Amino acid sequence: MEFAGSHILSVDQFERPDVERIFEVADRMEPYAHRRRITRVLEGAILGSMFFEPSTRTRVSFGSAFNLLGGEVRETTGFEQSAIAKGESLYDTARVLSGYSDVIAMRHPTPGSVAEFAGASRVPVINGGDGSNEHPSQALLDLYTIRSELATRGRSIEQLRIAMVGDLRFGRTVHSLSKLLALFPGVQVVLISPRELRMPEGIVEHLRASGHSVLESEELESSIAHVDIVYSTRIQEERFQSQEEADLYRGRFRLNQSIYTANCEPNTVIMHPLPRDSRDNARELDDDLNDNPNLAIFRQADNGVLVRMALFTLVLDVVDQVDREARDVNWYTARRF
Amino acid sequence: MEFAGSHILSVDQFERPDVERIFEVADRMEPYAHRRRITRVLEGAILGSMFFEPSTRTRVSFGSAFNLLGGEVRETTGFEQSAIAKGESLYDTARVLSGYSDVIAMRHPTPGSVAEFAGASRVPVINGGDGSNEHPSQALLDLYTIRSELATRGRSIEQLRIAMVGDLRFGRTVHSLSKLLALFPGVQVVLISPRELRMPEGIVEHLRASGHSVLESEELESSIAHVDIVYSTRIQEERFQSQEEADLYRGRFRLNQSIYTANCEPNTVIMHPLPRDSRDNARELDDDLNDNPNLAIFRQADNGVLVRMALFTLVLDVVDQVDREARDVNWYTARRF
Amino acid sequence: MEFAGSHILSVDQFERPDVERIFEVADRMEPYAHRRRITRVLEGAILGSMFFEPSTRTRVSFGSAFNLLGGEVRETTGFEQSAIAKGESLYDTARVLSGYSDVIAMRHPTPGSVAEFAGASRVPVINGGDGSNEHPSQALLDLYTIRSELATRGRSIEQLRIAMVGDLRFGRTVHSLSKLLALFPGVQVVLISPRELRMPEGIVEHLRASGHSVLESEELESSIAHVDIVYSTRIQEERFQSQEEADLYRGRFRLNQSIYTANCEPNTVIMHPLPRDSRDNARELDDDLNDNPNLAIFRQADNGVLVRMALFTLVLDVVDQVDREARDVNWYTARRF
Repeated sequence: MEFAGSHILSVDQFERPDVERIFEVADRMEPYAHRRRITRVLEGAILGSMFFEPSTRTRVSFGSAFNLLGGEVRETTGFEQSAIAKGESLYDTARVLSGYSDVIAMRHPTPGSVAEFAGASRVPVINGGDGSNEHPSQALLDLYTIRSELATRGRSIEQLRIAMVGDLRFGRTVHSLSKLLALFPGVQVVLISPRELRMPEGIVEHLRASGHSVLESEELESSIAHVDIVYSTRIQEERFQSQEEADLYRGRFRLNQSIYTANCEPNTVIMHPLPRDSRDNARELDDDLNDNPNLAIFRQADNGVLVRMALFTLVLDVVDQVDREARDVNWYTARRF
Repeated sequence: MEFAGSHILSVDQFERPDVERIFEVADRMEPYAHRRRITRVLEGAILGSMFFEPSTRTRVSFGSAFNLLGGEVRETTGFEQSAIAKGESLYDTARVLSGYSDVIAMRHPTPGSVAEFAGASRVPVINGGDGSNEHPSQALLDLYTIRSELATRGRSIEQLRIAMVGDLRFGRTVHSLSKLLALFPGVQVVLISPRELRMPEGIVEHLRASGHSVLESEELESSIAHVDIVYSTRIQEERFQSQEEADLYRGRFRLNQSIYTANCEPNTVIMHPLPRDSRDNARELDDDLNDNPNLAIFRQADNGVLVRMALFTLVLDVVDQVDREARDVNWYTARRF
Repeated sequence: MEFAGSHILSVDQFERPDVERIFEVADRMEPYAHRRRITRVLEGAILGSMFFEPSTRTRVSFGSAFNLLGGEVRETTGFEQSAIAKGESLYDTARVLSGYSDVIAMRHPTPGSVAEFAGASRVPVINGGDGSNEHPSQALLDLYTIRSELATRGRSIEQLRIAMVGDLRFGRTVHSLSKLLALFPGVQVVLISPRELRMPEGIVEHLRASGHSVLESEELESSIAHVDIVYSTRIQEERFQSQEEADLYRGRFRLNQSIYTANCEPNTVIMHPLPRDSRDNARELDDDLNDNPNLAIFRQADNGVLVRMALFTLVLDVVDQVDREARDVNWYTARRF
């Protein structure tokens, strides 16, 4: 695809070379994101950050990524008292607000609304999540993390063996990640979930049709023995009829250090889209994993900044200018990546 | 008036040369607002954006205008849990918060509160709307838009023929616009409203005393035949006793493409302060006007950035420095104005 | 203490040379805070501003201080709908959010929570208030103000005679200020409160053990005759069982201009941590003091910016670079300090 001026709405819009291009640019963002160098390539540019549904980590990650490129951020959060509440159409909102920025990152609870907004916007729009539908930068940072973690183990994405665990029915992240994985044939996928929360059949078929081996399981311990990555997810309790129904599944596939040691190969990577539940009997990933160097969940969150910097520089067409006039950081940086 | 260091509180404070000066400066902001060039003239300056009543478009427009001049924005929205709720006076709030910024843009639901705040502030305050009272930058951008649209048709403000339509009784924007128009004698004004929502008599008299021809009407179609501008407004439902009373008037003067074609001169400009109502039976301006090139409502919103940049540079006295050290934009810009 | 890379969590972490170092650096921030000069020393750095409890003045003061050093601010306010509400631990929140910024300013309603967050953060954290516990930058700006006001009267902190007035039992600010004062032996302290709201005994003993003279009183007028500073505080009504109980004490020690003139030495300085209550019968400091040049409450709020700039430059280790490449302000500045 041609990135300059494009909206980023869905993982479906990417071919394999597009994903590889994003990752290559994300790699080049590393000295800036990790605070060894400073670039001002987007000085004077404005990001319109519109989070019509709250999401602290995604909102701040987009905003920081834009700041790290030298740009400014104008934020809008919530919309109970906005013009939309006075009966304004999404079309009008998009026409007006796109006049105030150079690129927009948007989250909205209604599936399809970000694409509808993008249709009327006069500047590129990046989908930061539209309900149960899409969240492409999350899928990209997940796959980018898989690629990075595998690389330190001397492997590539095509050699990946991955277990996805938990609520595979409602979990938007595992759906989108599967679609991206389908672009890299040869992956071995293990899908571990309660019977009622299995991965939708269409996605399983898509993975198989793309040349992947797919195994489904209802049992955690026996199924994580021969994988490079365990990708754990939380129960999407807001998608269930009742709290009680959600509680049936919560904490069902709980990974802790002793289960890890007893079952996994050494150096098996643990991922999670976060937030992970920390309440008793509801934890997917136990706190005793926090000292395990293979727990990659915070590196995964960090990678979101790299991927979002890559998306911004691609749609605004400044990739080749990032390194010009860059300089070293002059303040104390405690950052440990 | 002397702009440097002044508050901008009311359209009443302007003489005609002041308005012309603001428009001349707004013209000079065009390459920066439309992203052909970048200026950093206000680098290091801070805008205190205080919206004690929500207004996404006005808040973001002020903030983006300040960012486009190179300054930073510190925002406060809502005040339910603020110090004011703990019994702090507006005087104290103003004394303290004006110590944190170089200029303040403020909206507040109570008429007169912004002027009271300005009286205690140590930096210039721009009124972003104080309830039913004033919203001077809106009136300025409206008149600036009229001037721009007329100019492309080879006309000037003094030759203007304008129809104001809708809730002329409670509509703050038409009151303020009328006061500004009074500075440019010779305008032909048609006031179209239900009898109960007529323009206040004081404003009508002021327009006539200023040398304008004023016609009042309760009928849309026959009254928009010979005007350059149709300025449509929404019913200010929050000002009515009940939703039912507001519903009586909603959608009463609905303009759509067929009424436009059947009644208006070619190239008649359509304006609206936005938001326009998009709900069935409540639309003032139909969606089928969206492809009409004379629909100027989004150019009007865009002009808000130009006018606010002009106000900032005037009160901070940097007009002559804006172009110094300016440079071209180096990123992709899809902006279509 | 070594400032570079340190958290600022409590006044207890400071020795006297640390406080003197902060004040010396704060002095050097004055041309930048008062808008005579601009520095961009923290260009490219990001402050994570996390106010899980609202506090407009503290939040904006931190943000403006960071902007004045050339850095960017990414804000989060409220947490009802955040990941914490989905069961995320403070540990995870800290690990993730500290990846998006270079330093964090945080307020949280729960005592100890900021220290817990700091324990997991990968960047320095400055406590902006954790419930009834600590608010070290407030104590520092209070003592910095005392030092500044005394200096204009030819006195030093060791020669201070101060009266603390009001709710000394629940007032966090007077507790923290007392701890800092304990580092400067020789102060004369008068504690004026209702019997039920006396200063906790541990703090009184600590002051005496540090070489201070301490007098307790239940009467305002006779006790403010021989002091340099009257430090007034509001009733912490949120700490009482009922509004009625709080009302018993509200407005009990009300200072106004006639009481001041009748009882105080000339040039006695009046301070207050703000907000002061402006409601009838609840005022600690009457409005008729507003023209008294010894009312230092707004200089005190202004000093918060200086002290916070000092803390940022110290923990990020850029003190010696602030003046490099600094330049004069080029816009209108109405600031009257």
